[in-house]
Amino acid sequence: MTRGWTLDALVEGVRSGERRALARAITLVENSDPLAYELIRELYPSTGSAYAIGVTGPPGVGKSSLISALVRQVRAEDASVGVISVDPSSPFTKGALLGDRIRLADHFLDPEVFIRSMGTRGHLGGLAEATLQAALVLDAAGKDLVLLETVGAGQSEVEIISIADTVLLVLMPGSGDSIQALKAGIMEIPDVIAVNKRDHPAAKTMVNEVRSILALDTERDWQPPIVLTEAVRGEGIEELWSEISAHRSHLESGGLLAERRAKNLAGEVFAVASARAKAHLEGAVGDDPELQRLLEAVQRRELDPLTAVREIMEKVFKVHEDGVGPNTR
Amino acid sequence: MTRGWTLDALVEGVRSGERRALARAITLVENSDPLAYELIRELYPSTGSAYAIGVTGPPGVGKSSLISALVRQVRAEDASVGVISVDPSSPFTKGALLGDRIRLADHFLDPEVFIRSMGTRGHLGGLAEATLQAALVLDAAGKDLVLLETVGAGQSEVEIISIADTVLLVLMPGSGDSIQALKAGIMEIPDVIAVNKRDHPAAKTMVNEVRSILALDTERDWQPPIVLTEAVRGEGIEELWSEISAHRSHLESGGLLAERRAKNLAGEVFAVASARAKAHLEGAVGDDPELQRLLEAVQRRELDPLTAVREIMEKVFKVHEDGVGPNTR
Repeated sequence: MTRGWTLDALVEGVRSGERRALARAITLVENSDPLAYELIRELYPSTGSAYAIGVTGPPGVGKSSLISALVRQVRAEDASVGVISVDPSSPFTKGALLGDRIRLADHFLDPEVFIRSMGTRGHLGGLAEATLQAALVLDAAGKDLVLLETVGAGQSEVEIISIADTVLLVLMPGSGDSIQALKAGIMEIPDVIAVNKRDHPAAKTMVNEVRSILALDTERDWQPPIVLTEAVRGEGIEELWSEISAHRSHLESGGLLAERRAKNLAGEVFAVASARAKAHLEGAVGDDPELQRLLEAVQRRELDPLTAVREIMEKVFKVHEDGVGPNTR
Repeated sequence: MTRGWTLDALVEGVRSGERRALARAITLVENSDPLAYELIRELYPSTGSAYAIGVTGPPGVGKSSLISALVRQVRAEDASVGVISVDPSSPFTKGALLGDRIRLADHFLDPEVFIRSMGTRGHLGGLAEATLQAALVLDAAGKDLVLLETVGAGQSEVEIISIADTVLLVLMPGSGDSIQALKAGIMEIPDVIAVNKRDHPAAKTMVNEVRSILALDTERDWQPPIVLTEAVRGEGIEELWSEISAHRSHLESGGLLAERRAKNLAGEVFAVASARAKAHLEGAVGDDPELQRLLEAVQRRELDPLTAVREIMEKVFKVHEDGVGPNTR
């Protein structure tokens, strides 16, 4: 799997920001390769200097164009950038997503920009683990900024980029589900909101709608700014960047950034452990004839599903739920 | 917690479809009460005769109105119905969802209809477990049909209602995120699709768009029909019901229903066990000072997150990952 890279060479290569080493490292992460684990262990003590920005939003709103424009903006300020786009597994077509990636091609020749699209189909530890590892690699490589992109806007997608210091939600007029999800409290409130395609006749209406939803939540110490953008033409990007920077300053003043990072890291460890437990369970149930027999008894309605769950918990995780309900664990 | 109900009285009450017993049983489910576990264990052998229909879709598209209209339709055919609406936890407002519930009030006086809105904030085993248990209660009560409603249209919401025999996705013109998510393959393909608010000028365009997305997937043995509805006025409901019934006939011919139920039950046992593992982990990390110290070491960048995960897995689940990476478990 390592194709000639020793751990030392990888560590050295990543630390000096060498492209081939970064590409190799992230491939190892994608493949859940044991060497990725050792690499992250080596690199971790020297991470923590990159500022991480998570970019999320429904498919098709122009996240990749917006990221491309943001990269141009920050490159003008001479900051180095890493971009990780996490592709969800797709059952039958990836056309739209591949098209998106092409919009980032402008930056492929800039040595201070590293862009990587990452699949997660095979990753045992799930999206959270793969994203965390990739972000740590870019952090250790000395990138000033790390942008993490996920497609989707549900709670689970926001969780994936919850290692980010600032979360940017990208919407466009017509992404009605997201507005409704924000309104119903299903979607987490992000730190900054971009309403892309600002030339759309309904753009201003949408800004007002988002603003009125945010106004319902009076308890936050940071009121998320809403910025109108037109990513393809680079419009509104300077303002968007200045709002992201304002959120960063807000966190850096008064120790909020350290607090948020401590919370994010703990959440991330928890999410990765949950995903690992799930993968372990999947493997155990697949391999073990006794667990297969349990499932068959449930299917024949001879054994109720929750007793089956209890037996699986005992056998796979040595977790005993003391005879009665989950309340009493 | 049981307020005077013995297990025997509950089992008897649920079996005879008594409203107060059903209401009590689902409250016990919501609260993860140990009695709910015993109740389901008693009832399970006599379940399996109800036909379960899952209804999902983004917030605000009119799912509750559509369910209300479907209930009216099936009541005309003299079938008994149970409806479980699963509310996602909301951080700051539930206004929109409460409004939705009111639309079901038409049926509150019909003894053959049982409607319950269920919160899941406190449920240890997560949404999947609560929904499964509630559906089994209504099944055991002899309801011919059980409708399960979830808000949202991401993969996780579809998973929650994956115990359903038929999954209905409700969209409306303007629910652009869902269309994009279907297109990108992020959203699972449902069995039947309703495009609600058919008077909207963009309704037909939307139907064509959905149809062209579905046409990309040529491997399914069932091509999901798309029905235009106007739930508030009851329009298109007969056609929708006949398409749902057609899907049911499709499953019942050739043993597909038994196959799907076996698969659904196995998936459900797996989902509940995963959620339990996650809850167990949460409890363990919260209670154990040693695990707290691990997290603090990660926050100080003295211990890398994946080594912390490994130690947590060993301590909490007795799962040993053999020195190297997750690949080698």
